[in-house]
Amino acid sequence: MNRLLLLILLFSPLLGIAQEQNQEEDAFFIRRIYDEGLTRSRCYDWLNFLTQRIGGRLAGSPQSAAAVEYTRRVLDSLQLDSVWLQPCMVPYWVRGDKEQVRIVNSHKMGTIELNALALGNSIGTGPMGLTAEVVEVKNLEQVDSLGEALRNKIVFFNGAMDPTQINTFNAYGKAAGQRVWGASRASRYGALGVLVRSLTTRLDDIPHTGSTVYEEGITPIPALAISTRAAELLSRLLQEEPVRVFMRSTPQNLGEVPSFNVIGEIRGSDFPEDIILVGGHLDSWDVGTGAHDDGAGCVQAMEVLHMIKRLGYRPKRTIRCVLFMNEENGLRGARAYWKWSNEQGEYHMSAIESDRGGFTPRGFTADGHEDVFNEKFLKAIEWLPLLEPYGLAFRKGGSGADISGLKEQKGLLFGFEPDTQRYFDYHHTPIDGMDVVNKRELELGASAIMSLVYLLDKYGI
Amino acid sequence: MNRLLLLILLFSPLLGIAQEQNQEEDAFFIRRIYDEGLTRSRCYDWLNFLTQRIGGRLAGSPQSAAAVEYTRRVLDSLQLDSVWLQPCMVPYWVRGDKEQVRIVNSHKMGTIELNALALGNSIGTGPMGLTAEVVEVKNLEQVDSLGEALRNKIVFFNGAMDPTQINTFNAYGKAAGQRVWGASRASRYGALGVLVRSLTTRLDDIPHTGSTVYEEGITPIPALAISTRAAELLSRLLQEEPVRVFMRSTPQNLGEVPSFNVIGEIRGSDFPEDIILVGGHLDSWDVGTGAHDDGAGCVQAMEVLHMIKRLGYRPKRTIRCVLFMNEENGLRGARAYWKWSNEQGEYHMSAIESDRGGFTPRGFTADGHEDVFNEKFLKAIEWLPLLEPYGLAFRKGGSGADISGLKEQKGLLFGFEPDTQRYFDYHHTPIDGMDVVNKRELELGASAIMSLVYLLDKYGI
Repeated sequence: MNRLLLLILLFSPLLGIAQEQNQEEDAFFIRRIYDEGLTRSRCYDWLNFLTQRIGGRLAGSPQSAAAVEYTRRVLDSLQLDSVWLQPCMVPYWVRGDKEQVRIVNSHKMGTIELNALALGNSIGTGPMGLTAEVVEVKNLEQVDSLGEALRNKIVFFNGAMDPTQINTFNAYGKAAGQRVWGASRASRYGALGVLVRSLTTRLDDIPHTGSTVYEEGITPIPALAISTRAAELLSRLLQEEPVRVFMRSTPQNLGEVPSFNVIGEIRGSDFPEDIILVGGHLDSWDVGTGAHDDGAGCVQAMEVLHMIKRLGYRPKRTIRCVLFMNEENGLRGARAYWKWSNEQGEYHMSAIESDRGGFTPRGFTADGHEDVFNEKFLKAIEWLPLLEPYGLAFRKGGSGADISGLKEQKGLLFGFEPDTQRYFDYHHTPIDGMDVVNKRELELGASAIMSLVYLLDKYGI
Repeated sequence: MNRLLLLILLFSPLLGIAQEQNQEEDAFFIRRIYDEGLTRSRCYDWLNFLTQRIGGRLAGSPQSAAAVEYTRRVLDSLQLDSVWLQPCMVPYWVRGDKEQVRIVNSHKMGTIELNALALGNSIGTGPMGLTAEVVEVKNLEQVDSLGEALRNKIVFFNGAMDPTQINTFNAYGKAAGQRVWGASRASRYGALGVLVRSLTTRLDDIPHTGSTVYEEGITPIPALAISTRAAELLSRLLQEEPVRVFMRSTPQNLGEVPSFNVIGEIRGSDFPEDIILVGGHLDSWDVGTGAHDDGAGCVQAMEVLHMIKRLGYRPKRTIRCVLFMNEENGLRGARAYWKWSNEQGEYHMSAIESDRGGFTPRGFTADGHEDVFNEKFLKAIEWLPLLEPYGLAFRKGGSGADISGLKEQKGLLFGFEPDTQRYFDYHHTPIDGMDVVNKRELELGASAIMSLVYLLDKYGI
């Protein structure tokens, strides 16, 4: 919080922009939200079902269909004003056989297996695999400077996430380009395939998948992530001798298939046209069970509606829970939602996305259209004294991929922000499961989001 | 932070109490601390040795002696000005056979085993165990009101930790009395033994040990903790029928044995008589491996000295790392330290204890002698702008058991405060091990403590 904001916060009463809210009443209600959220929440049980009973839920997969059906039924059971499925077409990508990546010519260590996962949307090597010499780069720019030297090579992107960033999402943001665009960039110069260092600050044997994007016009080449320890080993060997790697992956893009966003809402009593959206994304990667990414966000959004009912709160505005499909490898659910919402002439007064894991809440990032953002953000800042006792703060920053397209409606967009330290230990891996989710932390997150929804609903913005 | 403090913080320059520090230089140095702490720390490796190679380190045990020797050697390797062992006598308590607690008369469910751990310092039931009817109470006061009705009974303390407390230490503080004083209170009225609900907000099968204290003059009776699920089951059965329980524990108090605090220090260049202590406690419970409680605090304190060396920082004041012995069941190491320090006429300008686990840092609680506390605390508050970028805050509150006795020296005492949500999932259990410690979170803690040490050293307080 900078000093200007502090000053406004301190002196807003003197300056005549007195807060109308009854702070005592609000503090009491927010305390009730937390009491309820920490004692009678079902969101942990819901997450358990999504992860343990359904599992990984990549868009288009049978599991994603099961997740649509399950969450629709849960929402149906909450006595909402309406629950519906919103159709969208999604790409259906399947991983195929277990990936193989192997150093085949090390004089020192013989054949060495490297733990790998094909990147989402990537093409395969063909059933025979491919073998080529490896060239290491640290980033996309280095690809351009090496240029033709990469022809018929495997390009190894070894840009590490910066461990000195306190917020791990900053480190992720800086390193993710190689995963998303590495294959396209290397293909420009005739490379045969790419290996990408997994995006985590940990040094371990767990590969992290994630989406890759083939630019139009380039020849798609296979792309796999390798674990950070594998990356360190490969890099060390490359300093000593040329290294040849065999890689094999057999994923397939099975074209587009129909899927759905799952939506439930409670209609506002006084201003039903003001929509407050809470959401997460229902799809996850196929490896692991998508507990933190983003089962947690989904069950927190559902819990907000359930808490409104349990607390007997009658919202003035429309509170809508949206579980978006295909955030991971297409954002098709979100795009379908934005298009539909705009066609209806809707106004999202606010939207809150939870897609940074189910960890201890630290607050919310806020974003919005430049025409309205500062004014609306200053209004939200006035609520800080009510939220600070729960360890919550606001800061400017991106909201969430699924709600980012609502900016044109000129509401205020929030990204729920939990503690970031552990998220990239699990992100897009086989170990993102229920055993790394803490029940209290998950419930505190739902309570934090509900508290903000309450203030947004009561006072508008 | 309350408004008064904010005002002081904002207007201190205008009021003429300008901060002398070069804020830019300090911000730069603290950034260096974190860069160093997050990339070249050895504290995770040290903790790995303490937990995986040495294990549970109850005072007086062979493992506690190994921990003394290991940490002394590590400190010896850091090129400090002095490293020494400070003798103290500690009680040596051993657990004996695996505890048995069994419901023996349930009509519904037959014989039911309850997961249990003897409380530290408790006496045993004798090798034959004991069987008696159970009476449930929620707190110590209820014992007094039941009085003679407890004669020849087993008193079951079933006070749950309040899950609605946001800071779990508050909930612990309110519920811990039954574990510490339950046996003494029940013994007043002729009870034969006590069972205590484990102190955690989780509902699981893991019993949590911890110390119990026999008041002088009462007849000691055996005391065991049972898991929260066992407690819920027992309570439910008690609502339906009288319940008889068999309990057996064979711990022994083996008297007093010699042990040590481990101390290392870097002598100050300008004000060596001003001591800044960083510390944790080296002993742990015998079950589990004491990773969060308090191996984490020990390696963080050691890392502060190591970081000072790695950074080439020359402290003006004396920085002393103290690894206290016997915090868990006697505080003998701390008492020996206080006595010795007072006899030397020492002045602890400040002391920082880390004994709340190795989780993501949130800040520091501050405490001190009433004669000086407010003035010194306001001085510390001036450093907040340098610490807030790292998610750190100050609040008034207890510092730590091992340093609390230094209050009479009228310095400023701090307790390092990490996120509290998960601590009581593991506290005093077999699962407090390395696999529930996150390397980054541990390192961030050490960096936070080092940052405060730097400011204390540079500016005094």
